[in-house]
Amino acid sequence: MTLAQRLTSEALGTALLLAIIIGSGIMGERLAGGSVAIALLANSIATGAGLIALIAAFGAIFDAHFNPMVTTATAFLRYLSWREAGLYMIFQCVGAFAGVACAHWMFGEPTFFASHHARSGAAQWWSEFVATFGLLSVIIGCVRGRPQAVPYAVGCYIAAAYWFTGSTSFANPAVTLARMASDTFAGIRPADALPFIVAQVAGGLAATGVMGWLTTPPGRKNY
Amino acid sequence: MTLAQRLTSEALGTALLLAIIIGSGIMGERLAGGSVAIALLANSIATGAGLIALIAAFGAIFDAHFNPMVTTATAFLRYLSWREAGLYMIFQCVGAFAGVACAHWMFGEPTFFASHHARSGAAQWWSEFVATFGLLSVIIGCVRGRPQAVPYAVGCYIAAAYWFTGSTSFANPAVTLARMASDTFAGIRPADALPFIVAQVAGGLAATGVMGWLTTPPGRKNY
Amino acid sequence: MTLAQRLTSEALGTALLLAIIIGSGIMGERLAGGSVAIALLANSIATGAGLIALIAAFGAIFDAHFNPMVTTATAFLRYLSWREAGLYMIFQCVGAFAGVACAHWMFGEPTFFASHHARSGAAQWWSEFVATFGLLSVIIGCVRGRPQAVPYAVGCYIAAAYWFTGSTSFANPAVTLARMASDTFAGIRPADALPFIVAQVAGGLAATGVMGWLTTPPGRKNY
Amino acid sequence: MTLAQRLTSEALGTALLLAIIIGSGIMGERLAGGSVAIALLANSIATGAGLIALIAAFGAIFDAHFNPMVTTATAFLRYLSWREAGLYMIFQCVGAFAGVACAHWMFGEPTFFASHHARSGAAQWWSEFVATFGLLSVIIGCVRGRPQAVPYAVGCYIAAAYWFTGSTSFANPAVTLARMASDTFAGIRPADALPFIVAQVAGGLAATGVMGWLTTPPGRKNY
Repeated sequence: MTLAQRLTSEALGTALLLAIIIGSGIMGERLAGGSVAIALLANSIATGAGLIALIAAFGAIFDAHFNPMVTTATAFLRYLSWREAGLYMIFQCVGAFAGVACAHWMFGEPTFFASHHARSGAAQWWSEFVATFGLLSVIIGCVRGRPQAVPYAVGCYIAAAYWFTGSTSFANPAVTLARMASDTFAGIRPADALPFIVAQVAGGLAATGVMGWLTTPPGRKNY
Repeated sequence: MTLAQRLTSEALGTALLLAIIIGSGIMGERLAGGSVAIALLANSIATGAGLIALIAAFGAIFDAHFNPMVTTATAFLRYLSWREAGLYMIFQCVGAFAGVACAHWMFGEPTFFASHHARSGAAQWWSEFVATFGLLSVIIGCVRGRPQAVPYAVGCYIAAAYWFTGSTSFANPAVTLARMASDTFAGIRPADALPFIVAQVAGGLAATGVMGWLTTPPGRKNY
Repeated sequence: MTLAQRLTSEALGTALLLAIIIGSGIMGERLAGGSVAIALLANSIATGAGLIALIAAFGAIFDAHFNPMVTTATAFLRYLSWREAGLYMIFQCVGAFAGVACAHWMFGEPTFFASHHARSGAAQWWSEFVATFGLLSVIIGCVRGRPQAVPYAVGCYIAAAYWFTGSTSFANPAVTLARMASDTFAGIRPADALPFIVAQVAGGLAATGVMGWLTTPPGRKNY
Repeated sequence: MTLAQRLTSEALGTALLLAIIIGSGIMGERLAGGSVAIALLANSIATGAGLIALIAAFGAIFDAHFNPMVTTATAFLRYLSWREAGLYMIFQCVGAFAGVACAHWMFGEPTFFASHHARSGAAQWWSEFVATFGLLSVIIGCVRGRPQAVPYAVGCYIAAAYWFTGSTSFANPAVTLARMASDTFAGIRPADALPFIVAQVAGGLAATGVMGWLTTPPGRKNY
């Protein structure tokens, strides 16, 4: 496919992903009557199921990264040039903010409004490291060994990671930036975003190194 | 298969789909003791899981559209003649109303009774645009790139869309018409149905245009 | 495989299925603190997920019917002799009761104790007709068009049917008989079992006829 | 792959599995406001979904046992030497404890602290026998008949087994040992671990014998 098609796919898919994350968070919180567990249950099931649908639909024809760390790992493992990787990331971020606006309009909220949801501290940062390490491990393992399982593995992983990490698993710098602009269930205070992204980059790079070595048969190069 | 078999399949499948949507809405609301979140959790899991089963069962031998907008997109992309598409839509609507009656009998409700559930306003209409845009994007992307994933992608998408759209995602004109005839959890006031259907048609056509271009390799015609 | 292996597989798989149905019903009810919706959510997710695992594990090497109506349909469509079908049904019933005992021991309940759970009336019987009609339709459609999807389609169908039918979808005569012997969440009063089984047989035969015709290409015999 | 790669894979995968089990238990309990059913719903969905992702990612290139009983069965059926099986088990146990520490840090808990969660009595031990018997049956059946379904079958089985067994299904000696070191939702009192492991070994060996015979075509050796 042409680069224009691939970049449009990244932007459109990331927009739909953010619409799912933000929208199901709003709906879950509105209906749950104060029970955070039930709101997160709805949020996690919707996000996991939505990811399965999006990656199945976009991932066979395009790359379906929807995540700058996935794009970075792909460039590190030499599946993608760094120039194209940079363009991917720009379109992912644009799509992510568009998806937040799309979700807000569906629930009668302002187009953008800064989050006041504090998410900080060492436990949260360690959570983002682990969440991104796990996500990239799952993706690299599946891409190299069982590529047709990628949509199901990624969707199931994220549904689980909403629960097993202390930060509910952002694991995606573009998603983190866009969630700053939503003062709803899934938001994050702008002041807290940078350490999250640093932790995600560290976790993603660690997984790229470990899984790159682990999945390379002896005698072959790592990439 | 003969046209008679294909039309019967559309009617039967759409009837079972409506039985699932309406029936699980009634059961969810009756058991949830006032918690709308838990009722919607049951309704969304049942509808998503039921769609996986129905499309897996009917979609390998037949078309398994169960949705006039899917049939419209199929005709636009020239997989189906407009004459057969019209017949599909008639049988989908007949099946949808039969499914509502089937569900009502299972719960001791009247065969048909008009809904009083108000669903109106710009946020709702935008939600239906987004819901149908996303559904058609998922279907077109999967059909062209990963056809064996269609049942899982569609079922997962609808389970997610019940949560991430403000309207709980009707995304289907035949379903919208039939849900007018059910004064239960999943119903819609007859006066509110037309704008929903207009928004669905707009969203479906937009997705058909965008995804048709996006998934066509350069140098080939769009259909 | 030998007949002894196939009969053992039917008994063992049906026993595990009943352990899942009864056990998750007991656990759900004990933990849910009076919320029937949450108990049924646990019961339906556990049964659907358990069926996926059991049919995936037993269904590639054996038949994995675990249900006399499925065996009957298989014999009608001439995939199995009536003599072997009769033996299958006997082993399914024996396995079903063994599974109930197995579940009761896991929760410190008596081996068998008659249920007092009343399930009667036309809405319940119509529910069982619909539940079994849908189950057999899903199975016949998948077996003829997409056999590798059978475990997922059946598991997802049953998870949905717990919610969209008024009877929570027994849809299986061996399961109905065995659930008489459990005075727990999933039980049924012995006096109510016979009409359930009659409705299941009627629904199953109707689906066998309709889907047998529907899935047979013109010019071929139905079986 | 080299032995070093396979052992690293067992340790890393088991660590991620424990992080999922312990972490989602903590999050579920903290958010559920006293409802054990909702905490277990989150715990079971997260563990089942996480297992699908982990086995899909690690299981195509490596073995992805993550469980000494699975390694034992593999050695019994002669797919693995006993020497390598012993090394697998050591790395699984090391990984399991690392995963517990990883989860505790994500939630601001001590690295290790002994559980006070009493789990004892015949019903619990019988539950562990059944849980492990079922798990090994599902794995052996899938590996021999439908290997590409292993991740989905195992994840779905465990999600179901959290509900249908009286012990919430540990079914894994390495997991049992590591859960002693966590005084949280998923923990087990150290004094109660040994009978659990004995029951798991008995159930796993029984399944290996029964399913080994059941899935071997007549005229071939069992292994």
